Amino acid sequence: MRETTGYAAFGPGEDLQPYTFERRDLRPDDVAVRVTFAGVCHSDLSAVEALAPGREPFVPGHEFVGEVTAVGADVTRFRVGDPVAVGNIVDSCGVCPPCRDHRETYCVEWPTTTYDGIDRHDGSTTQGAYSTEYVVRDAFVYHLPEGLDPAAVAPLMCAGVTTFDPLRRAGVGAGSRVGIVGLGGLGHLAVKFAKALGAHVTVFTTSAHKAQAARDLGADAVVVSTDDTAMADVERTLDYVLDTASGKHDPTPYLRTLRLDGTLCLLGVQNRYEPEGMALLGRTMTLSAGAGTVRTQEMLDFCAEHEIVADVEVLPLGEVNTGYRRLAKNDVRYRFVLDVAGTRVAA
Amino acid sequence: MRETTGYAAFGPGEDLQPYTFERRDLRPDDVAVRVTFAGVCHSDLSAVEALAPGREPFVPGHEFVGEVTAVGADVTRFRVGDPVAVGNIVDSCGVCPPCRDHRETYCVEWPTTTYDGIDRHDGSTTQGAYSTEYVVRDAFVYHLPEGLDPAAVAPLMCAGVTTFDPLRRAGVGAGSRVGIVGLGGLGHLAVKFAKALGAHVTVFTTSAHKAQAARDLGADAVVVSTDDTAMADVERTLDYVLDTASGKHDPTPYLRTLRLDGTLCLLGVQNRYEPEGMALLGRTMTLSAGAGTVRTQEMLDFCAEHEIVADVEVLPLGEVNTGYRRLAKNDVRYRFVLDVAGTRVAA
Repeated sequence: MRETTGYAAFGPGEDLQPYTFERRDLRPDDVAVRVTFAGVCHSDLSAVEALAPGREPFVPGHEFVGEVTAVGADVTRFRVGDPVAVGNIVDSCGVCPPCRDHRETYCVEWPTTTYDGIDRHDGSTTQGAYSTEYVVRDAFVYHLPEGLDPAAVAPLMCAGVTTFDPLRRAGVGAGSRVGIVGLGGLGHLAVKFAKALGAHVTVFTTSAHKAQAARDLGADAVVVSTDDTAMADVERTLDYVLDTASGKHDPTPYLRTLRLDGTLCLLGVQNRYEPEGMALLGRTMTLSAGAGTVRTQEMLDFCAEHEIVADVEVLPLGEVNTGYRRLAKNDVRYRFVLDVAGTRVAA
Repeated sequence: MRETTGYAAFGPGEDLQPYTFERRDLRPDDVAVRVTFAGVCHSDLSAVEALAPGREPFVPGHEFVGEVTAVGADVTRFRVGDPVAVGNIVDSCGVCPPCRDHRETYCVEWPTTTYDGIDRHDGSTTQGAYSTEYVVRDAFVYHLPEGLDPAAVAPLMCAGVTTFDPLRRAGVGAGSRVGIVGLGGLGHLAVKFAKALGAHVTVFTTSAHKAQAARDLGADAVVVSTDDTAMADVERTLDYVLDTASGKHDPTPYLRTLRLDGTLCLLGVQNRYEPEGMALLGRTMTLSAGAGTVRTQEMLDFCAEHEIVADVEVLPLGEVNTGYRRLAKNDVRYRFVLDVAGTRVAA
């Protein structure tokens, strides 16, 4: 076994604390990665808040980059020293229809998530990337694109793929009129992707003070979603709306912005969605989750070509709790990244 | 003005009674139709139940066939004596994007409905087809296909187009696995269409005793939707589900029957739909309404080619209230049609 140190939550909502634990020895198709940077996803925070009392310590982190330090006997795609990236799933059944289509996040048997997943071989619970090393099946490891800041690539592996996949699946391109709801970790990348794909982009935000930031990211228009007049002005104008907002909210106002045959794609899971019936007339609504292996590679290639990375604030790993407290107040533009290996910022 | 006699509701939920009223004189693009058969749609019943107290008498009926008795000066597509059919919309703005695409039921300015619509020229309220004559703009009149029983064609003009359009739009064809929820006026036609398009058809019904009837219509499989085991057996198996059930119900069980990228198309408007969030993962949900002029003609051609008509029970116009009472108990297979001109059944 491989001793690893990281930060873990020991109880629901508690501060994370240093924690030493073991990773598995490499299986033939495994890659060991020394973690350099790990993004802080809002779902990391939610997972800590919702932690089951009495369970084993929980290490978050599911979007990270690092360097290969060892490979299993059958691994051919990676060598020791390769810079790599890993996202929010690390295995899947491989044989169900979505897996055969390389859309492993929709694995019928449920994909193995990067933390809090059940390993398909030894039944252990996966621990996340706020830690010095991660051991992962090679099929779910990606080469880090050259020319991009690795710290700013880390959030692409969750926030990036989660927004890139539905935009590509919807065929967003030149001439598309796209709405992006929310301007956080996901939203700011969605704006960059939609613009790079050639779309006209309208950002919906509850915070009027974010208007300039949205324009700086490339938005063509900004609508404050609490302004009924402004919302009425954009009724029936958009082809596609990507709703990156988390938490319970009514999809109805965004459905109304869609023209006939337009699609509202939600990224935040609610217990129940409750759209008004007539708002769905001639429009569609869907929920999207992450992206599979083929799309993830496509996204990394796209980001390299278009020089797209996340806007990040890098924190020493030891300041993870400060990051969580600020994230809970949405005080971040737009993603915290933990300097896990201590190569960037002073601890 | 043209004196017309028909049956009208004089108050909410009251029995319909004989009523004499006036149709407009023909405008240059109008066609006068002597109504022979008018289908009884569930929405006719709902409209009577929801009638505003104190309003003018209300004549239902929005799926009918008949014979042209006069044409306006500019009408070229029809001549006196032509057998024709009319559906649930009789005009639209003609210039909005959906109208330009001949999808007039989605007219941004709202189409003029066959009853209880506001005429776009004189501002009068339209009265329906439970009446001896209807005057209608020529663009919303269709030639009756030869070789089909006119009485059984009448329901195609609402129940037919409403189910045919979404099946066609979704590209249902050979190899498609389609679910049809409900086996009433709409559902029984949906089964016929889906089968004729080449799909494998599963009918969902709450009534186990309808299983044989569903198979008689062509269904390949029947699932009683209250049977959790049977529902679990069809999870993730279907490409497309058309939900023809009216009234408040949870779309979640039908979403779960869909594979990745599958679509649930609802036909009944609810105040709010309330699907479980995770059931929408990788699936889409939409609401469809009727069909425009091009699709309506396509449906009539398709029905002529495949010898598809509604299964109807023809009632004398004077027995409309009997029909309503039986319809309220779902005691009909599958559509009542009123013999408005008295040519078929004894009054």
